[in-house]
Amino acid sequence: MENVIKEITPRSTDFSQWYIDVILKAELADYSPVRGCMVIRPYGYTLWENMQQLLDGRFKATGHKNAYFPLFIPESLLQKEAEHVEGFAPEVAWVTHGGDEKLAERLAIRPTSETIICNMYSKWIKSWRDLPVLINQWCNVVRWEKSTRPFLRTAEFLWQEGHTAHATKEEAMAESIQMMNVYADFAENFMAMPVVKGVKSASERFAGALETFSIEALMQDGKALQAGTSHFLGQNFAKAFDVTFLDKSNQLDYVWASSWGVSTRLMGALIMTHSDDNGLVLPPKLAPYQVVIVPIYRNEEQLTAISAKVDEIIKKLKSLGISVKYDDDDNKKPGWKFAEYELKGVPVRLAMGGRDLENGTIEIARRDTLTKETIAVEGVEEYIQNLLDEIQANIYQKALDFQQSSMRNIDSYEEFKVEIEKGGLLLCHWDGTPETEEQIKEETKATIRCIPLEGDKTPGVCMVTGKPSAQRVVFAKAY
Amino acid sequence: MENVIKEITPRSTDFSQWYIDVILKAELADYSPVRGCMVIRPYGYTLWENMQQLLDGRFKATGHKNAYFPLFIPESLLQKEAEHVEGFAPEVAWVTHGGDEKLAERLAIRPTSETIICNMYSKWIKSWRDLPVLINQWCNVVRWEKSTRPFLRTAEFLWQEGHTAHATKEEAMAESIQMMNVYADFAENFMAMPVVKGVKSASERFAGALETFSIEALMQDGKALQAGTSHFLGQNFAKAFDVTFLDKSNQLDYVWASSWGVSTRLMGALIMTHSDDNGLVLPPKLAPYQVVIVPIYRNEEQLTAISAKVDEIIKKLKSLGISVKYDDDDNKKPGWKFAEYELKGVPVRLAMGGRDLENGTIEIARRDTLTKETIAVEGVEEYIQNLLDEIQANIYQKALDFQQSSMRNIDSYEEFKVEIEKGGLLLCHWDGTPETEEQIKEETKATIRCIPLEGDKTPGVCMVTGKPSAQRVVFAKAY
Repeated sequence: MENVIKEITPRSTDFSQWYIDVILKAELADYSPVRGCMVIRPYGYTLWENMQQLLDGRFKATGHKNAYFPLFIPESLLQKEAEHVEGFAPEVAWVTHGGDEKLAERLAIRPTSETIICNMYSKWIKSWRDLPVLINQWCNVVRWEKSTRPFLRTAEFLWQEGHTAHATKEEAMAESIQMMNVYADFAENFMAMPVVKGVKSASERFAGALETFSIEALMQDGKALQAGTSHFLGQNFAKAFDVTFLDKSNQLDYVWASSWGVSTRLMGALIMTHSDDNGLVLPPKLAPYQVVIVPIYRNEEQLTAISAKVDEIIKKLKSLGISVKYDDDDNKKPGWKFAEYELKGVPVRLAMGGRDLENGTIEIARRDTLTKETIAVEGVEEYIQNLLDEIQANIYQKALDFQQSSMRNIDSYEEFKVEIEKGGLLLCHWDGTPETEEQIKEETKATIRCIPLEGDKTPGVCMVTGKPSAQRVVFAKAY
Repeated sequence: MENVIKEITPRSTDFSQWYIDVILKAELADYSPVRGCMVIRPYGYTLWENMQQLLDGRFKATGHKNAYFPLFIPESLLQKEAEHVEGFAPEVAWVTHGGDEKLAERLAIRPTSETIICNMYSKWIKSWRDLPVLINQWCNVVRWEKSTRPFLRTAEFLWQEGHTAHATKEEAMAESIQMMNVYADFAENFMAMPVVKGVKSASERFAGALETFSIEALMQDGKALQAGTSHFLGQNFAKAFDVTFLDKSNQLDYVWASSWGVSTRLMGALIMTHSDDNGLVLPPKLAPYQVVIVPIYRNEEQLTAISAKVDEIIKKLKSLGISVKYDDDDNKKPGWKFAEYELKGVPVRLAMGGRDLENGTIEIARRDTLTKETIAVEGVEEYIQNLLDEIQANIYQKALDFQQSSMRNIDSYEEFKVEIEKGGLLLCHWDGTPETEEQIKEETKATIRCIPLEGDKTPGVCMVTGKPSAQRVVFAKAY
């Protein structure tokens, strides 16, 4: 048991190494022979499937349907929206050959699909009757990044990208905000990860968007992580791709568009929000299994008796919708199993031994607090049901307390330079210019994470230039 | 109504054009600006999602877990298994540049993932305790085909690929056969598509496999379609990628492997098995919605009364697990809607008008038989529940009758040359040599679809050479 755990570098020693250690040891992912590309292993992929399923349900509940567009984007198509191609071209992987034949035109592997999707929308949309178009796709995208890190920044990653077209500016804007809220709700209520909702400054905006909304989370090392974005695209792409429609008064107009996405980056966010020096800590609402049961026995006969009792518990847990794994593998010792499931972040661990069987008791351990107690078997299922809710609430509260305590008003740039080194989300006045933003970034490596939509809206003066500021914005060092 | 329908080319006029017409008009898919790549539209994608979900459930029930491996395969890795690279290299799309930088080594876009997955397995598998490894992935793959057709053969397609590793030959073989059976069961019981299960001849085998099992379906034009394959890989890939394990007696051995896959090709199979000159015909177990309800009204007041009654029906249908769409769109006439849902293959259509409301009746139309009748509203939900089962059974039986009547024993090569032009699955004796197989293919364009695992196993003499034949094999012209 000690052996397994001591292989994880403590967070206080080296947070980055701790992160990698947790991913590899918990078998969430592994490095691949392709530079910057990772393999998502079954345990990690199950977690991603759970996230996908919940998000997908929310997309469908808000009227969206899934579709699939090609992996390849002809170079000429990618170039149609000027800002967009400027933003993405440097990180595009190019296909130049099919078999032995050199292609007449290079094909980009999609870094995002606005261009190819708008191209199709220009064919499909003719009239106001065809609007809104509310489509999402789950797929892989490729961005040829220089420096990569599992889940956080990889050359290929998995994501969903919603692409919508509307008859009016107001509808497209409402859609963009709605999807930011869907993401925030998912982050807080399922990932147990508090986020700040806000608008990006111009320099952090998506290439080609008029406005980018984002949810920003705080990691345990005090750095911020952009966990999801939703873009109001205005009519930019519609104009570049000629996506027009006849409105009710028979006038030809360009559609108004939005796009929004979250990716496997959420896996990294999840790990860095809750996990500890013993490994993963998973929110019960996303865990591949919520409960693991380990029998402790001296002989076959005792195992049979324990298994019979455990079977009853499993049946009741399943009827309550709780996922459970019974690990009676004879090749591994209980201590090894305990360490393994701790490492893998299973929220609740039950252990039953010979004495428990006699006494009608069972040992129950919480992953979040690492505490354990012995309770009566009778009613253990309802106890676990409540406990899972309690764990979900507890890890959210812990993350929320950490986030809240890190958010502080800073009014002088000198103080800012000191405070930003301590990490956290700093609320500061800024004069709204890209020049000041750039100066702060160069001098401190901190960026504006967002202009928050909620909270204090009092005007003030910029901490750097003393010029007027409409409201405080969130600064942080970020992933 | 007439207008919509007459745009579909009749099957008897041009089957290939009929197929394309159905796909485009029913909005299953569309052409994209990338050669050989298609867009799967929401209606088509929902159908694919339904198939995915059912298949995925069956994979998980047989112990498999999903994972995700990189899109890119370094050229050196692809080349490690000689037969495999020879089979796939001619149709590989190559990435040569990342951003502005030329890559040191070309990257293949996966045509299939045996190589990259075996590479990881060699890292993960050490001992018999690590076996079996039962992993599946849902992903996109690319094969640079010269001639393409939506769903049937596209440069990029979606599929699942299972990759398993076992301690013994017997286990790997049992796995290969099990997955062929999973596919056959899915084809027959959900797609309502009868299939012949069999073994491929050496020349039709997967590049690098020792044995390929397949399910072969018969399309309405008399051509066969390979709908799914499952490969017994022996130790070929294990040797090429050094995937070894210590067995229970502490001896080092290579693992035994299988791989198996079905793709969006199944969508093409589904269309060509059941659909007719009016458009799609979908099996109720896969249809995006099983029932559509159209109100027929003269004024707002009448619509309100009909909608109230329909709401009750919808609630009851949903409680029976039946998916239903109520189309009260005021911009479209009932006749237009009828044609639209016929085109889209919705199994059951209900229509309710003013007189129905007075009489307590409702009109019910079956897509498979194109018949309609007026029945009492009372109990309509249970009636529909039975009707959906009946439709599922009916279209299966129709397809089965067609397949059975097409299967005929042919004993002379002269007769074969005549009969093969009529289409269908011909059962013939073959001497087992690639030479004879090649001769038949060159002279008639027919190929051996499979050596069937079930049915008549009587030996005989080859229809071409007169040499001994172990059993009849299935010949057909194929997609």
